[in-house]
Formats: sequence, structure tokens, C-alpha cells
Amino acid sequence: MQPSVVTLTTDFGYRDHYAGVLKGVILSINPAVRIVDITHAITPYFILQGALVLAATYTFFPGGSIHLAVVDPGVGTSRRPIVVAGKNHFFVGPDNGLFTRVYQTLEDVTVYEISEPAYCLRPVSATFHGRDVFAPAAAHLSLGVPPARFGAQLKDYCRLPVPQPKETSTRIRGTVLYIDGYSNLITSIPRQSLERLGAAEHLSVLIRNHRIDGISPHYQAVKCGEPLAIVGSMNLLELSVREGKAAEMMQCGEGDEVIVERHP
Amino acid sequence: MQPSVVTLTTDFGYRDHYAGVLKGVILSINPAVRIVDITHAITPYFILQGALVLAATYTFFPGGSIHLAVVDPGVGTSRRPIVVAGKNHFFVGPDNGLFTRVYQTLEDVTVYEISEPAYCLRPVSATFHGRDVFAPAAAHLSLGVPPARFGAQLKDYCRLPVPQPKETSTRIRGTVLYIDGYSNLITSIPRQSLERLGAAEHLSVLIRNHRIDGISPHYQAVKCGEPLAIVGSMNLLELSVREGKAAEMMQCGEGDEVIVERHP
Amino acid sequence: MQPSVVTLTTDFGYRDHYAGVLKGVILSINPAVRIVDITHAITPYFILQGALVLAATYTFFPGGSIHLAVVDPGVGTSRRPIVVAGKNHFFVGPDNGLFTRVYQTLEDVTVYEISEPAYCLRPVSATFHGRDVFAPAAAHLSLGVPPARFGAQLKDYCRLPVPQPKETSTRIRGTVLYIDGYSNLITSIPRQSLERLGAAEHLSVLIRNHRIDGISPHYQAVKCGEPLAIVGSMNLLELSVREGKAAEMMQCGEGDEVIVERHP
Repeated sequence: MQPSVVTLTTDFGYRDHYAGVLKGVILSINPAVRIVDITHAITPYFILQGALVLAATYTFFPGGSIHLAVVDPGVGTSRRPIVVAGKNHFFVGPDNGLFTRVYQTLEDVTVYEISEPAYCLRPVSATFHGRDVFAPAAAHLSLGVPPARFGAQLKDYCRLPVPQPKETSTRIRGTVLYIDGYSNLITSIPRQSLERLGAAEHLSVLIRNHRIDGISPHYQAVKCGEPLAIVGSMNLLELSVREGKAAEMMQCGEGDEVIVERHP
Repeated sequence: MQPSVVTLTTDFGYRDHYAGVLKGVILSINPAVRIVDITHAITPYFILQGALVLAATYTFFPGGSIHLAVVDPGVGTSRRPIVVAGKNHFFVGPDNGLFTRVYQTLEDVTVYEISEPAYCLRPVSATFHGRDVFAPAAAHLSLGVPPARFGAQLKDYCRLPVPQPKETSTRIRGTVLYIDGYSNLITSIPRQSLERLGAAEHLSVLIRNHRIDGISPHYQAVKCGEPLAIVGSMNLLELSVREGKAAEMMQCGEGDEVIVERHP
Repeated sequence: MQPSVVTLTTDFGYRDHYAGVLKGVILSINPAVRIVDITHAITPYFILQGALVLAATYTFFPGGSIHLAVVDPGVGTSRRPIVVAGKNHFFVGPDNGLFTRVYQTLEDVTVYEISEPAYCLRPVSATFHGRDVFAPAAAHLSLGVPPARFGAQLKDYCRLPVPQPKETSTRIRGTVLYIDGYSNLITSIPRQSLERLGAAEHLSVLIRNHRIDGISPHYQAVKCGEPLAIVGSMNLLELSVREGKAAEMMQCGEGDEVIVERHP
């Protein structure tokens, strides 16, 4: 049997020792576990960005993986630490909405508060629950401790409002969810909504004062340096510039409105 | 038995191939070892920052771990490569003070020069001892080679002066040691010094032209965007701005003086 | 027997989930494989930089390692996905020249197109072949699938022109290939060319309006803050500033001409 996988998604950054400390704590409890960095560069305190990255990644990991996520502006207060048990995946982190998009994609989630002190480091600090609570919980999970042992089941766990696109028979109104490292604009508009609206060549995308006609099948449908609309790897509408930087060139940012229209 | 852990702490950065080369060299000598990145983003040539990060991290790793650290402006000269053997942990790197804080926290350290060519790559370059000397030494250690085999024991190993806070019965005078990725100011003043000085609510912190009254139990003791003083995860006094950037907002930097006073 | 190693070299960056997704896909197919990050910070779309980093790193990994590389501006078009089998190493990525320098260093390379759908995720997206094609291929290779099973052998695989230094009996004319994270200028001029031209102390290096006399044996041959020329860890001429930033100080960039002259 293979040792479990623990993935890490945090806003700790790559310069400090915080992510390294998590790894040490986990390996001290379960030396056989496999630790995999997803990212430590979530924008500090930006819970919804962490939620998006996590939901876009976890499904690609083997069943039984444990996903440790820490974007935790409320550390040290009454926001609860939780373990989330889905059909095939486990999640550990703060109950602040970081798992909002995971809840959307998983049926039959069970959520437990982490309150059993035997599964935490002692003393628990006021500033670093990643080290003192979440990393130990993930490591104990990987050793086979059942989720229900960590504490009481919760029904009122936190879900943040997620912007949903609004559709009519002639247009879709969505937003820019995320700007990735290539400066692509990833929107909230899914492939299915586009398909319902019309054929790719009859759709136009409007953002700020830009208009892009047609949804391209690949980046090479336009010349280098030109903008295009494409369904990206998350099955969401993305706006890109071929071998360029869309967000910079189009001066757009997260939260901007995006409209898709059908023309005859 | 679990394979050993080798941790990596360097100023190589994340863009170049240098850290990848270390990993290849280590795995070529011991394919079973577990390699864990702590950070590769120490400020280039900043030995004391590496010393701080290393000392704040290694204690969380399992006993027997090997900590490879490279911040090495003197590469290629007479500064010696060393293996440090503590009670439960091993360290490999240049003898330039990088282990200064490790020596402070460990009793009974034995330090050996790495001079045995059989444990180095050949030829040893003048610019990359991480690859040619330190990585092979760490890998051979992980295979069970006793530290004394690497070379002669050293008594005159390098310790850099570490700024110590000055305490009187009414005030503590310390410095900012480190600014972390959240822009928190981590100072040289330990929890115990604060406790000796007085109750948290009777202490004030002065830095530049700022004054913060009281040491807060957690970040939520103030409103978003407001500064606070708190004992952080390293058991040192930290100055933060709730969900903000303290160093930027307070225009403070590493080396700045911090004073804590008791008021009646 | 040790599980295989899969290394990752991409332009995905460290902030997004793309590298994490690759790791999940690989571990889902072969949970025993060892995944090692070389870098995810190749400049986006900069194929020749990826080629340089890859060639400078892979030789340090154990025989049998699989090197997955993705710098892929042509994703989704007719550029072919390939598996490259060398004597001791395997490479997986786009056929766009990313393996140009690998081909230079390896004899007897066999290149196969990846066309067998059984070794890809389904459906294959138009924007993320790292996830859908290259990661699955690397994972299947690590399970022992022979390279010829992925598709037909290719003879016309892509090699990009690599700038070669021009030598006369009194001078070498080369270029700056790469600026590393320390701001060192790594040139195209190999150690052997310098040795053919003359003794280190009789050579001078000219770049922009700077002239550096002599090739130094190590960084400490000059004072802090002063420039020097040195043969670096890639056995190429490098221009550095001791504990400083050469590219910034000398205002030089990738592609700049570098001349080495012999003086009597």
C-alpha cells in the first residue's frame, strides 16, 4: 500500500520558513507520508483565491489524499479549525469559507471541528494554527485516525457567496475570478453556458472597452500579441493574449464584469 | 525504517536550476532519501537571515534529519565546509556563521571540516560548493557515514554576533530581526522578557515614531488595518497590522530599534 | 528497487495551481514515483531558457530519471508532443526546441511522438497539455511503458539554433545566454575556448562599455562590489560582481555581445 499524500495550499509565501515548518510537523508525526506543494503563493488573506485554486486541483489527486489549506486571517479567534471528509478526499483548514468551492463540487460532505487536544501540538499558539492544529491533524488523518475522532460534527460550516454568472437567452453576465501567472483572465462563465448561448463563432465577449469576436479553439487562432477568448483548462471562459499578458494589456482585474453576447 | 530527511535552505532562488541540481546530486547518491524544501529565497548572501530561518525550522523535523544550508558568499575561498552533529540533527554547509543560531539552541555540538575528497564530486568547482561539496556530504550522511569521517574536528568554528535585547527593570531595547512575507516585523525580544517586564496590558511598544499600547492576545484584538503587538510563532515580539502590511505601513526595516516600556 | 524520479521544469510559475495539477495527475497514475521540482519559473514562453536550465540540470539526476518539461506557447496546435529516450534519461514535452540542448549533449537519442490516446487524459484540452498529455506520459514511462508504445518514431524533431561563440586565434565573440537569480551574466563561451585562447591572466573581457582584465579563480579575487570574470558552475564564462548584481550594475541583458581578447 502506498503512503498517503498530503497536499499544501497556503498564503505563507516561499521566502519564510512557515511552509517548511508545516512539513517538519507532518513528517514528525507520519514519516511515511508524501507531501506535495500545490502553492504557497495565495495572495495573503485572500480566502476566495485559495478556494478557487484548491477546487481546481484536488480532483486530480489520488483518492484518499489529504488537502491541507491555510489562508487564515482569523487565526487565534473563534473561527473553528475543521476536517472535511468527502467521498474520496479529505480537507483540513480553517472554517472561514476556504472550502466553499470544494463543497460545491462534492456531495455528501461531513465536517468535523478539530477540538481534540491530543491531535494538536501543545501549546497552541495564537498566530500559527497551520503548525499547531492543521498540520498535526493532517498527519494524524494520514495515519488513519477517523475524522470523527477530531471533534463534533458541524452542520453550520462556513460557505462564502460565490459570484454566479447571470444568463438570459441572448447574453451572459459574469466576472473575472482570477488572473493567473500568464496574465490570463479566468472568468466565472462555464463552457456549458457558452454552448447554451450559441455557436462559438456567433459569440462576442465584452470587457471594459474591449470586444473580442468569437471563442477560439486554441491560442494560435490569432496572431502573437492579439487578444482572444478561449475555454481554458478549468472549463471556464478565459481571455488571453497570445504569448502576451492579457490583464496588463487590457487593463483588467479580478472582479471586473465580463459579458458574452450572441449576434446573429 | 524510514529513509532519512534532507532539508534545503538556500539563497539560490526559485528561477534557476541550482536547487534542482542539489536534488539530483543527493538522489544520485541516496535514491531513498526524502528531500524537503524549506526555502530557496533567503536574500542573496544574507547569512544571518539564513541562520534565523534555519533555527526557527529544524526543531520541527524528525530526529535524524539532515539540514543542508547554503548561503555562501565566500564560496571558493578558505572558508571551510562543515558538518555539524547535534544530539538529534545534522547540519551541512559553509563555516561562515550560518549555523550561529543553531549553536545557540543545541548543546553538545560537534563540528567537522569536510575535507575527505571521497565524499565530494570531482572536480570541486570554485563557484558551486552546494553541488560539489555540501549536497554529496548530506547524501553520504543520510547513508549512515559517521560525521567524523568527513574530516578533522573543528573547535574554532564561526559564530556571528547576534543582537541581544538589553533589559532594565522598566524597559527592553531590541531590534527588528526579520520582516516576513506578510510584512510582519519580527523582533529580537522574547516572550520571557516581556513577561518579566510586566502584564501585557501595561506594556507599550515604540518603533520609529509609532507607539502601540498593550500586547494583544491575537490579531482580532484590533480592527482591520490597525497595528498591533503580539507574541508570534517564534515566541518573539512581532509588530503586525491586522490583514495589512506592517513594515510598509510603519515604514520600518530590519535592524530598526524597538523599545518596550512598562507604564503604571 | 527505488521508484523512478520525475523532474518538473515549467513556466507555470509558483502562484497558480498548474504545477500542483501535474503532480496530482502523475501520482494518480503512479503513486510510487518521486516528483522533484527543478523550477516552475522559466520566463513564460521562453523556450531557449527552458532548454538551458534543463540541459544544465538533468545530468545530475540518477540514471532512469524522467524529465518533464513544459514551456509550450504552441499548445493546442499541430506542434507534436514527444518522448525523448536517451541512454540514461527520458524527456517528455512539446516538440518545439525545448530539448535542443539536450540533443547536443546526448548521443543516440530516439524521439517518439505521443499519439496513443490510452496514455493521455480524456478529453485532451486545447490549453493544458502539461496536464492532459505530458504528465500522463511521464507517469506511464515511470511505470515501465516502453517509449515506442507512445507513438511513431520521429526523425524531423525540432532543434532551435543555439548561438555558438566565434573563435579566432586572438579573440572569442560570444553572447550572454542567461542572467541568473544572483544577477550573474552567464555567457556562451566555454572553459575550453578560454583555455585555447590563453592563460587566464592574459585575457580581457569586453561587454558594453566595460572591460574586465583577467579571469578570476574565485569570487574573492576582487573586492566586494567589484566586477569579475570567472568560469562558473556550467563551465561557461560568467561575469559577476562580488556580493553584488552584475546585470544591474553593468546594465547588460540576455543576448548582449561578449568579447574575450588576449593581450600580450
